[in-house]
Amino acid sequence: MSFKFTLIHKDKYTDARAGILEVNGIKIETPVFMPVATQGAIRSTPINMVKDCGAKIILGNTYHLHIYPGESLIKKHGGLKKFLGWDYATLTDSGGFQVFSLPQKKITDEGIQFRYEKNGQKVFLTPELSIKIQEDIGADIIMVLDECVEYPCSKDYAKKAVERTIKWAKICKNVHKKENQYLFGIVQGSIYKDLREYCANQIVKLNFPGYAIGGVSVGEGLELLKKVVEFTSPILPKNKPRYLMGVGLPEDLIESVERGIDMLDCVIPTRFGRSGTVFTVRGKIRITNKDYRRDMYPIDLSCSCYTCKNFTRAYIHHLFRVKEPLGATLCSIHNIHFYINLMQKMRNAILEDSFKEFKENFYSNYFNKL
Amino acid sequence: MSFKFTLIHKDKYTDARAGILEVNGIKIETPVFMPVATQGAIRSTPINMVKDCGAKIILGNTYHLHIYPGESLIKKHGGLKKFLGWDYATLTDSGGFQVFSLPQKKITDEGIQFRYEKNGQKVFLTPELSIKIQEDIGADIIMVLDECVEYPCSKDYAKKAVERTIKWAKICKNVHKKENQYLFGIVQGSIYKDLREYCANQIVKLNFPGYAIGGVSVGEGLELLKKVVEFTSPILPKNKPRYLMGVGLPEDLIESVERGIDMLDCVIPTRFGRSGTVFTVRGKIRITNKDYRRDMYPIDLSCSCYTCKNFTRAYIHHLFRVKEPLGATLCSIHNIHFYINLMQKMRNAILEDSFKEFKENFYSNYFNKL
Repeated sequence: MSFKFTLIHKDKYTDARAGILEVNGIKIETPVFMPVATQGAIRSTPINMVKDCGAKIILGNTYHLHIYPGESLIKKHGGLKKFLGWDYATLTDSGGFQVFSLPQKKITDEGIQFRYEKNGQKVFLTPELSIKIQEDIGADIIMVLDECVEYPCSKDYAKKAVERTIKWAKICKNVHKKENQYLFGIVQGSIYKDLREYCANQIVKLNFPGYAIGGVSVGEGLELLKKVVEFTSPILPKNKPRYLMGVGLPEDLIESVERGIDMLDCVIPTRFGRSGTVFTVRGKIRITNKDYRRDMYPIDLSCSCYTCKNFTRAYIHHLFRVKEPLGATLCSIHNIHFYINLMQKMRNAILEDSFKEFKENFYSNYFNKL
Repeated sequence: MSFKFTLIHKDKYTDARAGILEVNGIKIETPVFMPVATQGAIRSTPINMVKDCGAKIILGNTYHLHIYPGESLIKKHGGLKKFLGWDYATLTDSGGFQVFSLPQKKITDEGIQFRYEKNGQKVFLTPELSIKIQEDIGADIIMVLDECVEYPCSKDYAKKAVERTIKWAKICKNVHKKENQYLFGIVQGSIYKDLREYCANQIVKLNFPGYAIGGVSVGEGLELLKKVVEFTSPILPKNKPRYLMGVGLPEDLIESVERGIDMLDCVIPTRFGRSGTVFTVRGKIRITNKDYRRDMYPIDLSCSCYTCKNFTRAYIHHLFRVKEPLGATLCSIHNIHFYINLMQKMRNAILEDSFKEFKENFYSNYFNKL
């Protein structure tokens, strides 16, 4: 088994890149979007239908999987992939981001002390423990434990968090022993250019097979997100994949890819899908809106997903109206397909040096609703 | 388009029958189980996965569909089949059974006066209106409006309901005009042999393409259900399909088929599935039971459904534990497959004159858990 990232082409007029990531025999075209199976399932969506959407890599959350069902059961199954019935690649985060959002956590240089939300049990998440759990969960790609800070965050504290992130990255790298599992480094530094640069340089020195930009999507907004990617991405090695964690809306994906990002993950497609918000080339719509009660069109006329090929907006509207859980399933399928398809369109545009035109064209449809 | 029922074989030692029902170009092997899409969806289950379970005919509830989304929207889609994305046959009930369970209904010889549960609106469901709604919904097979009585029910009242059922059956037959849609008669009569016989004889005189036994599964229990089927079924014409409405558990299906029933429907596979109760050849199990927390087997080792081919009991247990809706989906798929497969096994046994042995063998596994 192996890990290999091949940069195929860089767009002539932007920093957007098309590549191929091969991990343990699975070939993933980049830029790639990774649907999130937080608790061991893409919510409301049978995994074979996620596959039919064209997904090649999905993400599991270490924090949630550690609580339920616990990594030992996943290990017993032969890893996350076998546990949830997935044929392609998997990635787990380190647990740091979830813990970051908990109240009453206490962070020291040794790790993060917190209590489980569900049962109040005390846990001390160290870099060593995060790697141990992730080794047991057994994803193809795993992440170092990092300290994610809030937005806004003082520069003093952001600096402290960067130092911890670097320290923990070294520990993670040293303790990670599992073969055929590839550990990515993470760059922190809030919105501070010099901190991001410093952190990126230190992390890159450790020579990971891939690098992530963390600590974004914490409320900073698209303009700051763009800046953070803009000054962090160029420091990361050209020949390694760049993963922007927890992003985002379609426009966030486009702006990030334009700035050199290769991998993204987000719960938005399924979270929005569950409440009936669906993406179309003409913008987001809420299928629960009464305008769609008798609408005979599919969610998106140009879409080839299972939902759009088989059902009208009126039917899906009806499902939400009668509180039928199938509505959430159909909208989640559509949204996942929309995201995967958006990445493929971006990749094609990159290969043709037409990313700028693609973006303009996409926005002119997406933000100018009829 | 057309309707044709061919009796292929009667089991030598029981009244069990194997046949083929052809309706509008769709070939359905009988005995057949029909999953229920109450409100226009098999709950929690993508319709393509219902198809993969081997279902060839599904049922919609006229009462629910009339309220939401209303039959005009379904008609606009080209009928129920197109509305919910189903390729095979469909059947609608008359609405009578759902109305029967409402409080404050008032039944006269003209129809049933009731209020919608959801908005209190007054409705007067007549035989004419039921047929009109069912014509708009456009299922392949539709049902006459009948009066379903409670159990227990006085013989006097049961007699009145039988007379109304006969009267309404005549009206339904007269007003039903839609081509390529086949209207079944329904036999009522509570648990009274002479009433059932009388009703069956009167209904059969009207010459429907198929006949149902209604007013069962209302709390009378398996022993009385068996008796009702036993004294009603032989009166129904041999060359027409016999449909037992709203039945039931696996043992109910077996006992009914043994007594000459060709078609059955029930919400049990999906209703039980949603709460994690699943059927196996060794009896029902509750997957939410902690015994299954680390169980590496599929729900049923002998099962070839999507769920059993891809997931362990431990995984499905986990999904319910974290309240992930996919758990309901996977259990519903398994249960629907179990029911469809049970019918196929019965059919094979009938064709080999070994229904009795099949039943004994099934029960000895199903009721004697290891």
